[in-house]
This record gives sequence, C-alpha cells and structure tokens, in this order.
Amino acid sequence: MSPERAFDSKAVTVSEPGAANELTICGPDEELLRGLQKRGVNCEVVLWDGRSEPPAGLEAARVLIAGYADKTFAPSGLVRLPRLEVIQLISAGYDEWLPALPEGVVLANGRGVHGASTAELAVAGVLALVRGLPFYLSEQAAHRWSPQHRGEIAGRNVLMIGSGDIGTRIAQALEVFGAPVTLVGRKARAGVAGIESLPELLPQAEIVVLALPHTPQTDQLVDRHFLSALPDGAIVANVARGRIIDTAALVSHLRAGRISAFLDVTDPEPLPPEHPLWAMPNVIITPHVGGGTERWRERAVALIADQLERFIDHRPLINVVAPGSGD
Amino acid sequence: MSPERAFDSKAVTVSEPGAANELTICGPDEELLRGLQKRGVNCEVVLWDGRSEPPAGLEAARVLIAGYADKTFAPSGLVRLPRLEVIQLISAGYDEWLPALPEGVVLANGRGVHGASTAELAVAGVLALVRGLPFYLSEQAAHRWSPQHRGEIAGRNVLMIGSGDIGTRIAQALEVFGAPVTLVGRKARAGVAGIESLPELLPQAEIVVLALPHTPQTDQLVDRHFLSALPDGAIVANVARGRIIDTAALVSHLRAGRISAFLDVTDPEPLPPEHPLWAMPNVIITPHVGGGTERWRERAVALIADQLERFIDHRPLINVVAPGSGD
Repeated sequence: MSPERAFDSKAVTVSEPGAANELTICGPDEELLRGLQKRGVNCEVVLWDGRSEPPAGLEAARVLIAGYADKTFAPSGLVRLPRLEVIQLISAGYDEWLPALPEGVVLANGRGVHGASTAELAVAGVLALVRGLPFYLSEQAAHRWSPQHRGEIAGRNVLMIGSGDIGTRIAQALEVFGAPVTLVGRKARAGVAGIESLPELLPQAEIVVLALPHTPQTDQLVDRHFLSALPDGAIVANVARGRIIDTAALVSHLRAGRISAFLDVTDPEPLPPEHPLWAMPNVIITPHVGGGTERWRERAVALIADQLERFIDHRPLINVVAPGSGD
Repeated sequence: MSPERAFDSKAVTVSEPGAANELTICGPDEELLRGLQKRGVNCEVVLWDGRSEPPAGLEAARVLIAGYADKTFAPSGLVRLPRLEVIQLISAGYDEWLPALPEGVVLANGRGVHGASTAELAVAGVLALVRGLPFYLSEQAAHRWSPQHRGEIAGRNVLMIGSGDIGTRIAQALEVFGAPVTLVGRKARAGVAGIESLPELLPQAEIVVLALPHTPQTDQLVDRHFLSALPDGAIVANVARGRIIDTAALVSHLRAGRISAFLDVTDPEPLPPEHPLWAMPNVIITPHVGGGTERWRERAVALIADQLERFIDHRPLINVVAPGSGD
C-alpha cells in the first residue's frame, strides 16, 4: 500500500489467464483494481488517470472507475474513451461530472461507500460545536480545568437537508440524543419535507445539516436569505459540497457571532491560507475528510465488483445518477 | 438566574398561601426550588447547603434535594435533619453518599436528568478521537488544509460498560454508524454481558466506553491488567467516575502510544495543573461536563416534581439506588 507513489500508467490483467474477457475497464487507482482482482472480477484493466500519456488498450474500455481523493480521473481524458458506457464514481457527489458526461454514457455514484463515515463526521462536528470541544482542547493545552455550562443536542430542532444514506444516518444518531429531526429532500414524500418548505422550516431550525447533492438547483442554496431566516445561535453543518453555501454570506453571519458552523467542505477548496473563514469565531473546519477514512477502499471494491457483475450480466446498475441521453 | 451568587440560607414557601403543607423539603439550590414552585408542587422549602448556619425549620425536612455541581449539599449536614426520609440526588453517580446514608433513609439518584447529555459527550469524545478533530483544529489555527486518512467508527468492536440510560443511548448512537456494540452490565441478562465476561471481551474491544456507577466493585476496574488486555490502538472513554480507572496505569499506556483516551472524569478531580495526564499524547480531557448542560435544570425539576408527588401520595419512588436498612 503506497498511495503516494508516482502514477504508473500501464495495463493490468486481473482475469485468469486464458479467460475470455469481454469487458475492459479503465481507472487511475491501482489499489482498487488489485482489490477487484482479489475478489475474482473477470475483466481486463487499463490503468490511466486521464492526464498522462494514454496507454495501449484504452480504446477498448467500456467502464471507467473514476477514483477518489488524490487518485482521480481527469474528465478531459474522456475523449480518449470512445467505447465508454459507464462512469462509476467512488464519491457520493457527482456535480463536476455532469458537464463532461458524453452522450449515451451512464453516470453512477459511490452512494454507500462514504455514507456512514460522512455521517459520523457530521455528527462529530455538530457535537464538538454544541459541547464546546475547541474551548476544552485549548484549556487542556493550558492544563486548565474549566467547566462551563454549554448547550446540548437534546430538544434542539434539527433540519436535516438531504434524505439519502448520509442524511438518514445523521438523523438517526441525533434522534438518539433526543433531538426532533425534520428530514428535507428534493421532493416531498412520506416522512420527508420538500425543499420548497424551507421558508417555513428555517425560523425553527436550531441545527441545519447539509448532506445533499450539489446541482444547479442547490447551488448557493444557503444564501443570505436562508441564513437570515435562522434563529440566533443556530448551527450550520456542511458535509456535502462547498458551493451549496454562499461563503461570503456565511462569513458575514459568523463574524456577527449570530451562528456557528461546521464545514468539512468549502468554496473554494482547498481553502487558501489567507481566506477569512479560517479565523472566524465559532467555526470548525475539516479538510473534506468526511469519506476519506482508512476503510473506504474495501467498501468501494465491494460496490464496484457488484456493479461490474451487473454490467456483465446485463442487469440494471445501481446508484445511477445521470442516464446518458441515449437511454 | 445567577448561579454564581453567594449562598443565601433562608426558608422559602413554594406553596399557595393557606394550603396545608404536610411536606417540608430541604436543599441548597434556590433555582431548582423556584422551578418546583412554578410547577405548583405543594410543600414548604428550607434552603440549606449543609455547611452554613442551619436555618429555622430544618428539623421538619423529610426530603433532601442534594443539588448539583457548584450547589451541592454537604453530607456532614445530614445530622441536622432528624426527620429525613429521602435523599434525592440530581447526579447519576451516588457512591459518595453511601457511607453517609443514615439508617432508614432512601437514596434516589438523578437517572434521566443527565443521561442524554452525558451520552452525547461520550460520543463527541470518541468521534473526536477517531476522526482526529484535535489535529484538524490545530491545522485550522495555522490556516492549513491538511487531509489525512483516519479511522472511523464503522466496523469497530465497541464494549459499552454500563447498561443504564447513558450506556444504552451511547450504544444506539454508535450502532447507527455501523459499530457492533457489546453491552456489559453488573449482572448478565438478555442482551447484556456480565462484568465477569470482561477477560474474554477485552482482547477484541477496539473502543471501550465507561458509563457505570462507581462502587467498591468497580473501583479501579480499568487497571493495568484490563488495559494490557486491549488491542493496540484501542480507545478508552470515561464519562462515569475517575476512580473507575487506575490513572497511573492509564498514563503509562498513553505514554507508550498504545491506546487513546477520552476523559470527562479524572482521578483526582479537578486535575491539578502539574498532572501528567494533561500533556499525554492521544488524550482529550473535558472537565466533568457530561451532565452540566444548560437544560439540566428543567429536567431535574420535572424529576423532583414527579418524585415528590409520589412521596406525598405514598406511591413507590423511582430511581431508588439504596433503600434504608429499615425497608
């Protein structure tokens, strides 16, 4: 395991020798492919990141495994994949792929790979803000025992915006602590309020958690009108995408001390050293690590193996977020 | 609301004028008594902390509301309460009251007042350790975006020692994140392992959370044998009482870097500035604030009001932890 070494563009055969491989897949992350090999997935693999010199065999690739974090495929490389049928992401977020999606290609996301992990971090961030962990850590550094009366989750109205795997887990955890949670999804359904209900819901929302896809409809959803509608002392937590929040409006509310924020994602990202968010009062920033835990790879391999078997067997794919226009 | 002002020893009548009050209660916390007054509880109240000059009317007191945090009754004052029948604590822990408990007096604890709040803090501390929040907070202070691969709760074996209100809530929250949790109680029962099973359970315990009463049997339960039995990288979280852990043994394991700890309670308490625990690697210390949130008072008032109504109506009391020897 050496995720830091230089990218080595080459073809890797993961199938048994002599097996008839009808499927060629392409991707930038050799560890993921080794994981597939260990699970016995029967396919040819071409290692490529979309940026470096294109290797031989690339034109046969029908599925792209887009990689994650420091090993991601550059969408500009898609033009070199004429037979591509499926792009499989490891991330839950997929907005950056929509403009680049070739006609007729299916886009599937990594729902489930990072869900529990991202939910954990959201709850960690909200709890740290509510219970004053940054204060106690700085007191600990000074060897000071300084108990304070702080708030708690119990009884606080939570607005969980995003009702997928991540949002549902966050809601369940906060309900264990006695918080009434209102789930909000893009479309209203049983147990889930529609996003059009936000104007009525925001004035009672003491904690707002964002775990929804970034789309043209959710771009800067949390703008100055949204933030102004929240009650004093509200907490905003974002584990989705930075651009769902209007950063300038958030900075202005943080500066006024009216609200607190936990941000695992920011706009821009990475956040440059001179950005005012770093030094705002009442903000905790983590560097987009919601899903990037040690164990994501084994969950990703399990998802891809399942998906490739579905593809080979002509069964419906899972996690499809954008069917190609040919569908 | 001025919890810091000097203690003012005086009698307060919370009943309606002219009502026949058969019951007199005594306690050090005027705010709690005002809360009872607002709820219409029908009794005479004598304010006393057990330390200052005993006020008039004290000898009539049949129930003591022992107070919490900076407003607690000194057990040495019990000799001035000849008609005492019930001591109602606000805390879940009650071990310090057992040696002082007069014959025939019932001791009831504050189970439920701090449960959700303490469970929250335990989960906050474990999540902060697992997800590396202290590291990210120090990076934030330096305006640095430094993503790291860290562990997660999902899939980690959790040993939840303590199967009451607090322990059950912690278990539920960690299960939402995909951790298999084994509940351990003082006695084995359905779904709960007995404390005698610890030798078999410890070698698989990646996260150990302590939320059990401190008694002679649990004093220094977590000693060097206990700690040595844990796997490398294990986390120990204590939201119960400091003396359940052998602090010297813990310091030695922390120093070796083999385990991490979240401690809301310590031995001694408060932890003096020169104590080695403050500067140990991989430790997060909060100053016994598990239950001391802003909203504990309203839950305490609700519990006491219920308890006093039971007492007046001769119905069984709740939360009884030590019946007097006359029972």
